[in-house]
Amino acid sequence: MPRLDPPRSTAERVRDALARLAADIDLWVATASAEGEPYLVPLSYLWHGGRIVMATSERTATVRNLRRGGPVRLALDGLRDVVLIDGDVAFVAVGDLDQAVADAYAAHAGWDPRADATSTWLVATPTRIRTWREVNELPGREIMRGGEWLAPVAGDGTGERSAGGRGTDGGTGESDDWGGTGA
Amino acid sequence: MPRLDPPRSTAERVRDALARLAADIDLWVATASAEGEPYLVPLSYLWHGGRIVMATSERTATVRNLRRGGPVRLALDGLRDVVLIDGDVAFVAVGDLDQAVADAYAAHAGWDPRADATSTWLVATPTRIRTWREVNELPGREIMRGGEWLAPVAGDGTGERSAGGRGTDGGTGESDDWGGTGA
Repeated sequence: MPRLDPPRSTAERVRDALARLAADIDLWVATASAEGEPYLVPLSYLWHGGRIVMATSERTATVRNLRRGGPVRLALDGLRDVVLIDGDVAFVAVGDLDQAVADAYAAHAGWDPRADATSTWLVATPTRIRTWREVNELPGREIMRGGEWLAPVAGDGTGERSAGGRGTDGGTGESDDWGGTGA
Repeated sequence: MPRLDPPRSTAERVRDALARLAADIDLWVATASAEGEPYLVPLSYLWHGGRIVMATSERTATVRNLRRGGPVRLALDGLRDVVLIDGDVAFVAVGDLDQAVADAYAAHAGWDPRADATSTWLVATPTRIRTWREVNELPGREIMRGGEWLAPVAGDGTGERSAGGRGTDGGTGESDDWGGTGA
């Protein structure tokens, strides 16, 4: 079995998660139908102002599921560098998003939702974020709770929503899934 | 924008998907609660006999959600080499799985669920698989439908369930999600 790196501190994990949120282009979007059927698709996103800006067609199951007002669960790429995000989604009509943000999305994602009249913006506000690489990072995997980062966030514009400063190590006692990833 | 490779044929995609199913260790597991709340976690798996063998604790939300009898949606790692799998899950008590398969799982995944009495095996039978790399591969992304591969599968033991041979190019006309990943 490979030797594991020592677990990162909460502050390191927050810094790493913010760097990935800013750099990555795509993420997994998990939603559920009213009947309890899971749905999972990749979408491109832009990290802006502490929110995850996505877009897709109004005709998709993802939009149908989220229009019910349910939560969303998002994951960045990578099963050995997990960044799992729970959030709430607000809809913004395709012509109504701030022009500069829409331009930034188009440049980042490589397509412009404004070119498709069936598109809608989905703006997710993270409420809870967990991140871990290997099994030894499962303790302390929570780095945002109730919309607040659990360690200070530098004022570089990527984490403006943060109150920060608590520096706790998470740990809700919740029985999260764990099936050996990273053991 | 980077130049795209030409889209793969159905046969190539089947071959690539089988190779990844055999080689990868972890996947994303999307389920939903009865109340329509999405759930998404990484689990380790073993591809065996045309099925995806996973394990996790009975105490997890994933097991709770699947015990309802609902479907599961799985995804291999990688947002630019998407392998999306819909399937049905059967539960096997932790001591009841064939010993050789359990041993193979433990060797592949790096942990042995039999060491934890709360574990259960989850054995997923794929019913539908879609795979694509970039936007030009969205047409023809379906490579398994109704549990049958849509191109012949070599008899190497990884695709024994296949009837194969139809070689169609998929395309259900369903409005799948597409939000710019790969444009």
